[in-house]
Amino acid sequence: MSGQTSEPASGPTGDPTPGARAGQLLRDVRAARPLVQNITNFVSMDIVANALLAVGASPAMVHAPEETAEFTPRVDALVVNVGTLSKDSAHSMEQAVTTARVHGRPWLLDPVAAGALTFRDEVIQRLLRHRPAIIRGNASEIMAVARAAGLTQEAAAPRGVDSAHTTQEAEALAAKLARHGFCAVVATGEVDVVTDGERILRVANGSPLMPRVTALGCSMSAVMGAFLAVCDDPFEAAFAATALYGIAGERAAAHAKGPGSLRVAFIDTLYAIDPQDVAANLRMA
Amino acid sequence: MSGQTSEPASGPTGDPTPGARAGQLLRDVRAARPLVQNITNFVSMDIVANALLAVGASPAMVHAPEETAEFTPRVDALVVNVGTLSKDSAHSMEQAVTTARVHGRPWLLDPVAAGALTFRDEVIQRLLRHRPAIIRGNASEIMAVARAAGLTQEAAAPRGVDSAHTTQEAEALAAKLARHGFCAVVATGEVDVVTDGERILRVANGSPLMPRVTALGCSMSAVMGAFLAVCDDPFEAAFAATALYGIAGERAAAHAKGPGSLRVAFIDTLYAIDPQDVAANLRMA
Amino acid sequence: MSGQTSEPASGPTGDPTPGARAGQLLRDVRAARPLVQNITNFVSMDIVANALLAVGASPAMVHAPEETAEFTPRVDALVVNVGTLSKDSAHSMEQAVTTARVHGRPWLLDPVAAGALTFRDEVIQRLLRHRPAIIRGNASEIMAVARAAGLTQEAAAPRGVDSAHTTQEAEALAAKLARHGFCAVVATGEVDVVTDGERILRVANGSPLMPRVTALGCSMSAVMGAFLAVCDDPFEAAFAATALYGIAGERAAAHAKGPGSLRVAFIDTLYAIDPQDVAANLRMA
Repeated sequence: MSGQTSEPASGPTGDPTPGARAGQLLRDVRAARPLVQNITNFVSMDIVANALLAVGASPAMVHAPEETAEFTPRVDALVVNVGTLSKDSAHSMEQAVTTARVHGRPWLLDPVAAGALTFRDEVIQRLLRHRPAIIRGNASEIMAVARAAGLTQEAAAPRGVDSAHTTQEAEALAAKLARHGFCAVVATGEVDVVTDGERILRVANGSPLMPRVTALGCSMSAVMGAFLAVCDDPFEAAFAATALYGIAGERAAAHAKGPGSLRVAFIDTLYAIDPQDVAANLRMA
Repeated sequence: MSGQTSEPASGPTGDPTPGARAGQLLRDVRAARPLVQNITNFVSMDIVANALLAVGASPAMVHAPEETAEFTPRVDALVVNVGTLSKDSAHSMEQAVTTARVHGRPWLLDPVAAGALTFRDEVIQRLLRHRPAIIRGNASEIMAVARAAGLTQEAAAPRGVDSAHTTQEAEALAAKLARHGFCAVVATGEVDVVTDGERILRVANGSPLMPRVTALGCSMSAVMGAFLAVCDDPFEAAFAATALYGIAGERAAAHAKGPGSLRVAFIDTLYAIDPQDVAANLRMA
Repeated sequence: MSGQTSEPASGPTGDPTPGARAGQLLRDVRAARPLVQNITNFVSMDIVANALLAVGASPAMVHAPEETAEFTPRVDALVVNVGTLSKDSAHSMEQAVTTARVHGRPWLLDPVAAGALTFRDEVIQRLLRHRPAIIRGNASEIMAVARAAGLTQEAAAPRGVDSAHTTQEAEALAAKLARHGFCAVVATGEVDVVTDGERILRVANGSPLMPRVTALGCSMSAVMGAFLAVCDDPFEAAFAATALYGIAGERAAAHAKGPGSLRVAFIDTLYAIDPQDVAANLRMA
């Protein structure tokens, strides 16, 4: 990390820099302790709840149709992740996002393995109608969602959950999808791309060891939901969580011996990191 | 921890002190290796099973109605946790507790997020009819169960899974609930309250970092089930598990850098702790 | 580990030794990054996915009937684990193994708690008809599967998920089951037995702390699926994964303070272990 790439606390216009703003939003999450509902896959439940607790938010894994109608109106944000989708969970998701929209609760879509399976793509297409504030996935997933939204004919089918594309390849479609959906879009990878169709920021922090920890991306979406709960601008919320994850991952990886110890150190870092360090260590690409 | 607050191995009457008795029950669990059935939420599955194995018990996550009728009669204790409730899992729970009662197997109720949702409160109300030996929750949950049992009109609705009350506020209702249900009741928090309506003990051990680890409370209920399996007195079993958790959590937190390393150290401590240390480090409030 | 028990890289005939072959297959897994579909229990999801990622494979937890028909034909191997069985998941399993067979995808059966429950044994019996390439379980489970296959009248019912037998007791039935099913069979325990009915190898590596980590055996089955994906001989694949698990567990346990730190160190070791160390540290019994 050279002095060139880190940034001062305010830009030339006196506005806070993106990194300083991200640090401030982390402070806000810790102070507000937002209640974040997650309808997520079975693999990610543990790390999603632990990441939310570590960052200072309050996780709730309410997913039954019998409970979402009553619960969703009172949460601060909703995160929907299609990882281990079934007919039942798809029904819960649709009911929850409908409720969220009616009651003005912001929600985030994590389209795990989009483009890989027909049933999943149909569910994602139906969910998109209820206007997520943020869509976060890897490059292939974002491209597949853009295709599901009718924005490209290009096939982007990965075999499984891993990306077959770089975020650079996904950037133009990510911006198009953001404009189409009036939302923020995040494509994560070696360089993370955050855009709302007008603005675009690229985060170069992170570690190649991070994709070796299962559901770390799912937990990033959940934490992004916590930022969304304290910030009216989905683009800013998306960027802040992206910066936090890249910096915390990089720091945790510095002392990890492998994916096992990385996961432990990562949760510790989310809990302990000084908001000022977010601004100080941010590297834009 | 001052010398004043720790306790000798036997009280003035020569009876073992609560701490010495807790240590003895830990020895009993390790020797008996009780089979503990858990119908629990998806977030807690991993830590529940690992905590039971660490303490020396044998966990079984059998929850399908096709299997509980045959399985429950042969377990040493049953633990029911309503965390990620659905219509199906509620049905399994009712079937399992009915079977447990018929076959004389003790069972414990963990009423996660009681008071927050109508469907959940109705399920809890139905489960209560089958007489749990122990009810364990945070202060708000215990107060909500007391309300579901018709013991108070006071609204105790928390927004999510976190408590909105101290255990001091819940103490009177906890004792009333214990007398009403002929069971032991544990309200955990900064000070843990254990009561059977006649006796009451308060444990001051623990660490403020513990609620930052997801489902640690759920795993405490499961381990309490293991103690229930080796002890005819639910109050004593409840107290022993409460003491063990407070002391192990405190010890693990002493070297933890955050919730990630706390969780790892906590499981290690459950496995390695000397039963004598339970008595030696107990702090009553 | 004495010099006597470790083995040279090639045997007297010049063929690679089993240990050298296991190391080579680990290299192949890391190079091929096989896509392994898992229909597994809720307790094991996290450690299964993390073990597969650590070893260099790509895990996919697709289990809904709506998706398996489309997904299974394109995976490199399928692993079916009956841990937290239900009517729905049994249906998914049958559909997936049928599809795997039709499309020539190898699959592995992990018969968790076989012999303990009627419903489970019936499902296992139906799954067996679709010819798994490998069956992996503890001694009691392998004996119960042999009984379900009509190969013995001997009752082998354990109470829960823990084995009531040694692998020595299971060895003859394991070989009989392998011949009957034209597959490889692995019975894990203090000594792990790997057989295809003709050949038999016994691995003495491992640590008594390993059974204290929940679902480590389930994750071993998943990793065995990754080896099955890169090797046409199920016996060789089964042996390589067994050797890797024993050696990695032994190494991780050397510095662990309990089951919590063992799990973390184990995942780190799966990721970092040098394939040559597999051959160098293998101890046959």
